[in-house]
Amino acid sequence: MSFTLLKKDKTTGARLGVLKTAHGEVHTPVFMPVGTQATIKTLTNEEVLSAGTEIILANAYHLYLRPGEDTIKRAGGLHKFMSWTGPILTDSGGFQIFSLAVLRKIKKEGVEFKSHIDGSKHFLTPEKVIQFQNLLGSDIMMPLDECVHYPVSRDYVEESLKITHDWARRSKAEHVKVKEADRKLLFGIVQGSSYLDLRKRSAEEIAGIDFDGYALGGVAVGEPRQLIHEITEYTASLLPEDKPRYLMGIGTPPDMLDAISEGMDMFDCVVPTRNGRNGQAFTSKGELQVRNAAFKNDMQPIDESCTCYTCLNHTRSYIRHLFNTAEILGLRLVSLHNIHFYVKLIALAREAIEKSEFKKFREEFRKNYKTKSK
Amino acid sequence: MSFTLLKKDKTTGARLGVLKTAHGEVHTPVFMPVGTQATIKTLTNEEVLSAGTEIILANAYHLYLRPGEDTIKRAGGLHKFMSWTGPILTDSGGFQIFSLAVLRKIKKEGVEFKSHIDGSKHFLTPEKVIQFQNLLGSDIMMPLDECVHYPVSRDYVEESLKITHDWARRSKAEHVKVKEADRKLLFGIVQGSSYLDLRKRSAEEIAGIDFDGYALGGVAVGEPRQLIHEITEYTASLLPEDKPRYLMGIGTPPDMLDAISEGMDMFDCVVPTRNGRNGQAFTSKGELQVRNAAFKNDMQPIDESCTCYTCLNHTRSYIRHLFNTAEILGLRLVSLHNIHFYVKLIALAREAIEKSEFKKFREEFRKNYKTKSK
Repeated sequence: MSFTLLKKDKTTGARLGVLKTAHGEVHTPVFMPVGTQATIKTLTNEEVLSAGTEIILANAYHLYLRPGEDTIKRAGGLHKFMSWTGPILTDSGGFQIFSLAVLRKIKKEGVEFKSHIDGSKHFLTPEKVIQFQNLLGSDIMMPLDECVHYPVSRDYVEESLKITHDWARRSKAEHVKVKEADRKLLFGIVQGSSYLDLRKRSAEEIAGIDFDGYALGGVAVGEPRQLIHEITEYTASLLPEDKPRYLMGIGTPPDMLDAISEGMDMFDCVVPTRNGRNGQAFTSKGELQVRNAAFKNDMQPIDESCTCYTCLNHTRSYIRHLFNTAEILGLRLVSLHNIHFYVKLIALAREAIEKSEFKKFREEFRKNYKTKSK
Repeated sequence: MSFTLLKKDKTTGARLGVLKTAHGEVHTPVFMPVGTQATIKTLTNEEVLSAGTEIILANAYHLYLRPGEDTIKRAGGLHKFMSWTGPILTDSGGFQIFSLAVLRKIKKEGVEFKSHIDGSKHFLTPEKVIQFQNLLGSDIMMPLDECVHYPVSRDYVEESLKITHDWARRSKAEHVKVKEADRKLLFGIVQGSSYLDLRKRSAEEIAGIDFDGYALGGVAVGEPRQLIHEITEYTASLLPEDKPRYLMGIGTPPDMLDAISEGMDMFDCVVPTRNGRNGQAFTSKGELQVRNAAFKNDMQPIDESCTCYTCLNHTRSYIRHLFNTAEILGLRLVSLHNIHFYVKLIALAREAIEKSEFKKFREEFRKNYKTKSK
């Protein structure tokens, strides 16, 4: 068993656990910074580690196109290629193929698409995606699935689930071809859009295949915030207790705390780096746009309670100047702060669960946190 | 006396010295990374320091426009604004005003120009430029001068020198208004384009005013490489021995070693960061374009003899991938390496002068260094 459930919170669905991977232990709940192209955007590994990061994400689809199989093979896998020594979870890229790639065509066998970079034609099967993730040396692999957007018809979702479930079975079959001692972890992905009965069907089918963990896919693809949490809470209740639960692509700090409360354990999101590059900082008091003219002469750090390099060394005034003059250091400093804030927030949530104070922790956070998002 | 000449090389014009500033000692020869807008492009102060940097450059003209006097004043000066605790030399921005600013008009009193950012009108006098550098708290200030481009008529240069020399005298007069205990260093700038007799006239006039150091301006503004070195060698020979000599805006690694040999002590250049952001790395074996397809599967560091973070942690293959996928980390890693290489090269030159082996050091460097520039 790779996962040990250490504790269940009494007043919420929050859980405390530890996941063993080939490159070290991951303590859950956990936030995983996103390094789509084998780099957490703008940051060095050293900086990502300094935030307390235990595991990062990369994207098999992107790495399959660039740098490609040959380079990854010669480097000796993804860890060596990017010099990251900790655990890596790789997303299959299903989401990217279905949202970014032009002319993608789903067949029973796999998915045909043209590269978003050079228009070259590719055909990926569930087996091929597992093989590539084996080549990457991913600690946690995700199977190819169809990620549908919102809103979508019930009929479409029913047909789509057949493919996703079939691909899940084929992924598992491919995965067990690797001898047990060398085998990494493979998670299953539950789809079903906003149809709760289809989520149930999917959760049962996927759990029946027996994966090392379960992910909730196809959330935050256009549906209202309230619906995301309904789907999350409902689906989490259907998943095996003894396996980690990963909510894909979520979200803002309050979203993550809500999802922990709903029983989810693992999170990834591009928001801290993407928004960071636009000057949006996350703090214990809420969201802050450092480019704002109000900060022109503000000599405080972004967050006075933060211990990241940015907050220990630089003022809002200076960081605003960097954005104002299009200096790359600005993007770095806010991205670094945000990753630090996200990783630290979830670490604090772990502490709170440990002390049986998570409900209070979440409520206090929400009370102090100013946000414009609904 | 702020400058102590420690040693003169016997076989070349190379010198060893130490310059005392309000924020620490600077050992010459020295390379000063350029932080035009109060940031060495893409890098943190910590990274700049890790390269062994003793002093950095900033640009008064740029900082006058953004963030402006008010913000600098409220921050308590440039050091606090950018959190840099070491010495800072600020260029007046004469070069930028004369090359970038639109509709600039030189009058006897000063220079009128429109901001390159928003077209706003400004009038800067030599006095005003010194006052602003006092506000910045610069350890070494440069006076406003007219930097002429190449080629230019002798008549134009003769007229221009009158203004530059007059402004130098007025800058000095403004500078001594600060009481001696608080007074920072002020350098004079020798102009004269490619006319050696005008360089002589300028060197004599400027030296006559008695500055804390002497800079050679208006070089590398379009003239052939050979001519740069003729002007440098000739002018250096006319400058007082007991003051530091600063060659403005030069250059490639071989250029700097040549200029040291010609008797210059201080250097700044945007090349390591500007070219770094384009993927050009400087190494002990010459220049290398990491975006080159040849490096696709090259698992060596940029420079195997280098001890910077980039070379200790990452391969050419990975860095090429970062450039290929437009990832900011690529710009950072090559900029960091280049600054490290430049600062370290000049530190090695200092060691060689110390050991009376500079001539040999320079020849060996040249022998191993492959470059495409003439």
